[in-house]
Amino acid sequence: MGERLFLGVDGGQSHTEAVVADERGRIRGRGRGGPANHAEQPGGRERLARAVGESVGAALREAGLATEVSEVEFDAAHCAMTGGADFKEEVIRSIVRARRLSIGHDAPAALAGATGGEPGIVVIAGTGSVAYGENGLDRSAQAGGWGYLLGDEGSGYWIAMEGLRCALRAVDGVGDSTELGTRALRHFDLKDFRELARAVYAGRIDRDRLATFAIEVERAAREGDASARRIIAEAAMWLCRLVIAVAKRLSVESVKVAAVGGAFRSLSLREEFAQRVAQHLPLARVIAPRFDPAVGALLLAYGAAGVDLTEEILSNLEKESGR
Amino acid sequence: MGERLFLGVDGGQSHTEAVVADERGRIRGRGRGGPANHAEQPGGRERLARAVGESVGAALREAGLATEVSEVEFDAAHCAMTGGADFKEEVIRSIVRARRLSIGHDAPAALAGATGGEPGIVVIAGTGSVAYGENGLDRSAQAGGWGYLLGDEGSGYWIAMEGLRCALRAVDGVGDSTELGTRALRHFDLKDFRELARAVYAGRIDRDRLATFAIEVERAAREGDASARRIIAEAAMWLCRLVIAVAKRLSVESVKVAAVGGAFRSLSLREEFAQRVAQHLPLARVIAPRFDPAVGALLLAYGAAGVDLTEEILSNLEKESGR
Repeated sequence: MGERLFLGVDGGQSHTEAVVADERGRIRGRGRGGPANHAEQPGGRERLARAVGESVGAALREAGLATEVSEVEFDAAHCAMTGGADFKEEVIRSIVRARRLSIGHDAPAALAGATGGEPGIVVIAGTGSVAYGENGLDRSAQAGGWGYLLGDEGSGYWIAMEGLRCALRAVDGVGDSTELGTRALRHFDLKDFRELARAVYAGRIDRDRLATFAIEVERAAREGDASARRIIAEAAMWLCRLVIAVAKRLSVESVKVAAVGGAFRSLSLREEFAQRVAQHLPLARVIAPRFDPAVGALLLAYGAAGVDLTEEILSNLEKESGR
Repeated sequence: MGERLFLGVDGGQSHTEAVVADERGRIRGRGRGGPANHAEQPGGRERLARAVGESVGAALREAGLATEVSEVEFDAAHCAMTGGADFKEEVIRSIVRARRLSIGHDAPAALAGATGGEPGIVVIAGTGSVAYGENGLDRSAQAGGWGYLLGDEGSGYWIAMEGLRCALRAVDGVGDSTELGTRALRHFDLKDFRELARAVYAGRIDRDRLATFAIEVERAAREGDASARRIIAEAAMWLCRLVIAVAKRLSVESVKVAAVGGAFRSLSLREEFAQRVAQHLPLARVIAPRFDPAVGALLLAYGAAGVDLTEEILSNLEKESGR
């Protein structure tokens, strides 16, 4: 009989990540695939299938366990997916063989990863933004996650678009002058702003690529650009408000709060966020995430299989996840 | 030899309007067609051709002049189009026969219509927002018009989306409480906000339909909802800033300012806007638009044909345009 294998998958807007481990938390392989979101849109099923197949396949190959995903039966697998579509389970079940297969939203896996399976609140600011928490008893709560048109304040996309809007207002003489415009043209390698607008509406610059401009907003903020600093401060405000709303709904005060996602690569955002949390939730503790969301999904797979998250498992995961 | 006929077309995001008149400004017929925008998107050429063909055809039939657009040769025709794509001329030329055919943006026609061909500044707040002005000598200037992702602050779509974002923040406990959420579910006939989000991202509620929610924001503002009032005030602020930016660039102070477009059906917005203009441009005069943008396009057609805009023409247009 072969060893027991467990799988965690984190499917996101920009890419999908899979991690394969044994029952003692020793990570055997990791793999990456394309984006797994917008499964309800044309071609979405195929994109989802490809993202899961690619990432799990790459993890299995790195582990030297198999060349085909179908060769392995996992003891338990958990797939954490941004967004939601009912047929995801059907698509994933046709690819991944597991005695216990569960599929959930991305936020619970991000929380499990950030805290190592303990209660707490996680705020995710990637392309979108959402906060999610569990009180360790019976309750969970979420705030945000409404997507780029209706919300997602404080996300990387939001920061980037606020930056571009500020830049265009400066061009028009409708808002404060800022160096964000110069940075935008350089970042996207364009001549002028009409070209930028055409590229955005024609879809030649897609949402993920737009979101990368958040890096430039961060740089401008650090170099003292007032508009950029205001945007980062507002982003931190919205992300903190999401956390406060979740804490209130869970009736928790001395809670661990973890900040996850690409937007938090911005040092200014991390600092502003931590300050605001300290101000509004003085008993909360902002922690560095212990594991990434893919390992968080793996922890949920262990949970589904009834495997206790012993310190041995967690420290093995810590060692081998290279954190 | 038949009478001289002139054509003005105003192609917009929600519909297209055509007006046919003789050389003395007597309006012979008016017609409506579908939206003419996004000509660069798949099916855009066909949509543009249909919008122009329908609207001009309907105007000619109302005039009793022809049943087919191709039966008539106009002395001059001007088509004012929202957005811009170079092949519009080619498409329109294949439908409309005119000795002088000109195609331009929507803003100059809106200005010509609003002022009866005189210099001034027009601010258009429809699905999008833009301000445009001419100083009567050699200069014109524009601000805004960056589209729904990058700008369009103060437009109907912007007001509606700010309203929905406020509603969702209230739902999450992240923003002030507001009655906009209740109004949104009623307006779009939906059970809950997850359904709203799904309908928006799946495109079942498109941008024009989203923009109609601006009416509810106006109503809530009038009934004292603080969030709705703040949104209307901000919209007025942005629209006024567009006008100030254009006035500055034209170096004009005692200038006519006209507010055009569906968003200004909001009485609160009109009032707030007029107050802000009075405050920031004390020598400017906010005027009621004399003609609609389709007649504005007609005035540009007269201009292209060298027809002087006499008081006779203008008062004929006024009489028969039913204003």
